[in-house]
Amino acid sequence: MQTDEQEFRMKLHRPMMSAIALGISAAVLLLAAAAVDAASDSARPMVRIAELEIDPEQLDAYKAILAEEQEASVRLEPGVLMLHSVAIADNPNHIRLLEVYASRDAYEAHLKAPHFIKYKTSTEKMVKSLRLVETTPILLCAKGRAGEPATCM
Amino acid sequence: MQTDEQEFRMKLHRPMMSAIALGISAAVLLLAAAAVDAASDSARPMVRIAELEIDPEQLDAYKAILAEEQEASVRLEPGVLMLHSVAIADNPNHIRLLEVYASRDAYEAHLKAPHFIKYKTSTEKMVKSLRLVETTPILLCAKGRAGEPATCM
Repeated sequence: MQTDEQEFRMKLHRPMMSAIALGISAAVLLLAAAAVDAASDSARPMVRIAELEIDPEQLDAYKAILAEEQEASVRLEPGVLMLHSVAIADNPNHIRLLEVYASRDAYEAHLKAPHFIKYKTSTEKMVKSLRLVETTPILLCAKGRAGEPATCM
Repeated sequence: MQTDEQEFRMKLHRPMMSAIALGISAAVLLLAAAAVDAASDSARPMVRIAELEIDPEQLDAYKAILAEEQEASVRLEPGVLMLHSVAIADNPNHIRLLEVYASRDAYEAHLKAPHFIKYKTSTEKMVKSLRLVETTPILLCAKGRAGEPATCM
């Protein structure tokens, strides 16, 4: 049980303390430090939200091509850390992606990857609108595979 | 090199084929199958976006409390699979979360967890607006820890 004063003093340092307590790797700690660094630096993670509206008649085809591109990007590209896609439940031709790249350079490399170029050209006429929203990550936490601890960065 | 016809026929089946090729666990495959099942089922994953506007004067305190809650939830709750938070770069008091729960039951349990209740009560006066957007997952892909393959669900 902590006093209110202790709690207040610890507030800003808790995320980093929790990360250490989890015993996550030095590489992930470096990434987390980079994420909160306000300096403009091509080596810090780049996290973005993409908001797309898809032609309803081509929605199933679009989702299949998107899923293939996500899987290939995260599997094959060292700098593509996460690609999560969802459809808005009550407006399913509205798609949102959360994209996490190790750096801006990793993102630039992704734009040149054959699977991305294939996705971009084959979905060009399916996408009615695309809005790219730059973000600053606060904390990205995911459960590990069976038996492994959670990881935050 | 595939013919266009082969490519067309394979399109809809590719995400599942890719998952099998990756050799991801049976549990994850079941989860993916549940994710695309249109039936209303409390056992399928629940994926949601939360859009929050925070009082700018309390933004740093809010982010510290949020990060602590995310880390505790993903580490301690078996049914909280991912919690990712970002701030919109050109509007940093606008926060977005991507929340992934193993099921609606897991989400209901999360609402009763002490770390969530602590977050909710301590940030009540910091949150100016909250919009919860229900989604249907398409594909969630993340890089494994060092040396491990990527996982999609």
